[in-house]
Amino acid sequence: VLKLPKKMKKILKNLWNVGKEDPRRVIHAMKVGVALTLVSLLYLMEPFFKGVVKNALWAVMTVVVVLEFSAGATLRKGLNRGLGTLIAGSLAFFIEWVAIHSGKVLGGIFIGTSVFIIGSTITFMRFIPYIKKNYDYGMLVFLLTFNLITVSSYRVDTVIKIAHARLYTIGIGIGICLVMSLLVFPIWSGDDLHKSTFTKLQGLSRCIEACVHEYFEDKEKDQESSDSESDDEDLIYKGYKTVLDSKSADEALAMFAKWELRNTRLCHKFPSQQYIKVGSVLRKFSYTVVALHGCLQTEIQTPRSIRILFKDPCVRLAGEICKVLSELSENIKNRRQCSPEILSDSLEAALKDLNSTIKSQPKLFLGSNLHSNITNKHLNGDVSHYNDTNSHDIVSYHNDNNSNGCVLGQTVEQNDTVSPLPLNSVVSLSSLRSVKKSAATGEKRRLRKQLSKIAVMKSLEFSEALPFAAFASLLMEMVARLDTVIDEVKELGTIACFKEYDKTVEVRVEKPVNLVVGD
Amino acid sequence: VLKLPKKMKKILKNLWNVGKEDPRRVIHAMKVGVALTLVSLLYLMEPFFKGVVKNALWAVMTVVVVLEFSAGATLRKGLNRGLGTLIAGSLAFFIEWVAIHSGKVLGGIFIGTSVFIIGSTITFMRFIPYIKKNYDYGMLVFLLTFNLITVSSYRVDTVIKIAHARLYTIGIGIGICLVMSLLVFPIWSGDDLHKSTFTKLQGLSRCIEACVHEYFEDKEKDQESSDSESDDEDLIYKGYKTVLDSKSADEALAMFAKWELRNTRLCHKFPSQQYIKVGSVLRKFSYTVVALHGCLQTEIQTPRSIRILFKDPCVRLAGEICKVLSELSENIKNRRQCSPEILSDSLEAALKDLNSTIKSQPKLFLGSNLHSNITNKHLNGDVSHYNDTNSHDIVSYHNDNNSNGCVLGQTVEQNDTVSPLPLNSVVSLSSLRSVKKSAATGEKRRLRKQLSKIAVMKSLEFSEALPFAAFASLLMEMVARLDTVIDEVKELGTIACFKEYDKTVEVRVEKPVNLVVGD
Repeated sequence: VLKLPKKMKKILKNLWNVGKEDPRRVIHAMKVGVALTLVSLLYLMEPFFKGVVKNALWAVMTVVVVLEFSAGATLRKGLNRGLGTLIAGSLAFFIEWVAIHSGKVLGGIFIGTSVFIIGSTITFMRFIPYIKKNYDYGMLVFLLTFNLITVSSYRVDTVIKIAHARLYTIGIGIGICLVMSLLVFPIWSGDDLHKSTFTKLQGLSRCIEACVHEYFEDKEKDQESSDSESDDEDLIYKGYKTVLDSKSADEALAMFAKWELRNTRLCHKFPSQQYIKVGSVLRKFSYTVVALHGCLQTEIQTPRSIRILFKDPCVRLAGEICKVLSELSENIKNRRQCSPEILSDSLEAALKDLNSTIKSQPKLFLGSNLHSNITNKHLNGDVSHYNDTNSHDIVSYHNDNNSNGCVLGQTVEQNDTVSPLPLNSVVSLSSLRSVKKSAATGEKRRLRKQLSKIAVMKSLEFSEALPFAAFASLLMEMVARLDTVIDEVKELGTIACFKEYDKTVEVRVEKPVNLVVGD
Repeated sequence: VLKLPKKMKKILKNLWNVGKEDPRRVIHAMKVGVALTLVSLLYLMEPFFKGVVKNALWAVMTVVVVLEFSAGATLRKGLNRGLGTLIAGSLAFFIEWVAIHSGKVLGGIFIGTSVFIIGSTITFMRFIPYIKKNYDYGMLVFLLTFNLITVSSYRVDTVIKIAHARLYTIGIGIGICLVMSLLVFPIWSGDDLHKSTFTKLQGLSRCIEACVHEYFEDKEKDQESSDSESDDEDLIYKGYKTVLDSKSADEALAMFAKWELRNTRLCHKFPSQQYIKVGSVLRKFSYTVVALHGCLQTEIQTPRSIRILFKDPCVRLAGEICKVLSELSENIKNRRQCSPEILSDSLEAALKDLNSTIKSQPKLFLGSNLHSNITNKHLNGDVSHYNDTNSHDIVSYHNDNNSNGCVLGQTVEQNDTVSPLPLNSVVSLSSLRSVKKSAATGEKRRLRKQLSKIAVMKSLEFSEALPFAAFASLLMEMVARLDTVIDEVKELGTIACFKEYDKTVEVRVEKPVNLVVGD
């Protein structure tokens, strides 16, 4: 007995959340209630509409079925229902006419056959993608009406009268639906599509930010606040998942928006197709984000000590990408065209910066063999005894090569570090020395349980910077794809007649764009 | 006038294709036709079912609305309709009883209020995700029936009789639907889900194959047969798109399959949830495939001459991955559990092979500066004049460094190539020398039109092998994720009570697994 109030409380909380998520749902529910009450009044007013009331159930049915959440969806269903009923009625009348003129038995057979043929044909036609997308409900109504009229009229012999009354009541139902959905707190699918587009852009921006943040975060900090990491994970996952899963929802919204014959201020038509295009470009963009996220979860991790070397340029480049995305989002939100120099010089500078940093650290991409090489040499402290160590190196390397049995063009390298700034050099070398340790302990902790079975992966010694190379090249790929996103958003701005770009309007970006990582 | 037959022909061809794609659609259409004809017979048999005929329209309606493509969907809709009608009828009866006992005016107000409240509440409840997923149609039917009965009964005063007749006819309708969907050529959602799962695995395998094929294909060949390349592109795109887009379709199938209370040979329940899990793991896997495909389309391309160096180990590794995927697909298809050694030694060997090949070519990851370095040295032919070139190099590099202005630990390298096999060395060096040329011409051709705007990208000289590093590390990541796929498929085999693994049964893989690239 005590459990019941608890369960009730849970259900009520659930309902409350549904309403809080989108308050328009409450409005829509009220609208349906009012519409149904209005239709019910038809019965009470029987004296005024004598013929109608008998068929008033069709009005109720219409309201229940046609009144949808958004104006576009209601219009679409109303038109489908109206057309379906009209065409089905005409066809049923024709068949009825033929049946009456061919005698009782023959007429019965004729009606039976036509019911079978029309039923099969319409059902089959509903599988055609174009019809399924646009007229599925109309087909259903057609089938329903046709069967009801044909079969019942065979008895009643008053097709026209029935059809007339039915159309009349359905008309009343559709009328109430239209008033409710177009005039009383209308909900436009076009607005939802617009909102979903700029929300996705913002989400992607935050997602990239979180990705880069986590990639360069200090290991120690992670353990202290594992909550915040899983929060980050959640943010990243949600960010691109929303974009990837948006396809069908966006297409439905665009389809409904097509029916909303509403002018957007200056333009003639709502550019739903262009929103779809932006969505699909964004989905392609987010594939890169997914791959970037994969770099965080991957089996073969670049040690944090190496990552830290590239932190600043990577964070800077990611910050620039996020800035562009946020700017695009803000522009769409405020229906403004975007600045022609949205791909700014600072993005270019950030790219070049990352480039030169990678070039200045070529050693890192040579594999762990080489790290130990470097470290050994410096431990010996013998930079001047060059030729000695050199010849020794060659010999030892040859042996290695043979045992590995590599076939392709074999190259042997010597490496040496002579730095103009001894302090800097020491810093980078000590960090290199710590690589092996942190890699050994860090990797074990990182491995997810189900992955630990692949002993293969652990036993291999890939160049430890190779995964970072993937990370960096994904960031650059992102810049390339960003361009297609910008193109489509600009196109959207033109087609949708957004406000002209105004230099004096400062773009207000909600979050600080310069990433602060691990500070 | 001449156009009409052409259009008709096109429509007919369209219909034909829809049927050819899935012949069960034709069967389903025929089934609907037969069911409708059967229901129509009710009218003809009026003498036998006196009370029923008046409400026969409810039977027609039920057949039209409830008879769905698969058995599970029909059962679900039938139950929703039945329950919705029953509960709505009871509630309407109660409200009617209260209204009658409270006088004409008060009763009218009471009914109006309850119509409004119930209409709003039910509409609002349909937004709750759980109800939307499972009982959306039931809610609609509830609302419809409640309104029809309440409102009309206020006049007719014969609720119980109406409700009785209506339930009776709906029962007849549902009965016909059940016979048609469960006994006459039944179509099971569970089978569709099963088929979709192994088809996706196969598609991914082919997709990876095509990706690697295209990545290592000779450039010259591409231009000759650009058709075959766009075919490849199409295959790749479709392969992962099917997997990525499968979410909602699979979830619908799984939901319908839940209603199909059919025993799969030995098991008690169809493991639809596990199929969903396999689907979601496959989707995660395919993100890597998408990223791999991104490597083919990326802006910064590794020259073919460098790629060719890694062709064999990459092709071998990809071949092993494809082999595992095909094997999993075949196992699911034949409802067999998979071999415990599905992650074979040859996969491990392929991984190690790629590893050692990458290690044997560390020069490639040093950027184009270094390539020219190496080439220059060899053109001078002076390996013995070591210290001279060395000191010269350091000076020039310092200047570079300063102008680039990099901040992090600066390292200066000398590089030298002493090969035990002069012939091999010459081959690899000449290929390196050709890098610059082919990169310059190849990249221009590669750049898609809309991308050419980013002049930044082209002006940068990233290490040319960096994008290849991304390619290789994605292949390795794929192996890691493959493991989670295998886990879920094994779990599926256990839950679904597939046949035990039998060593004597040879797994027949449809396509030759060893990739043949460019031969």
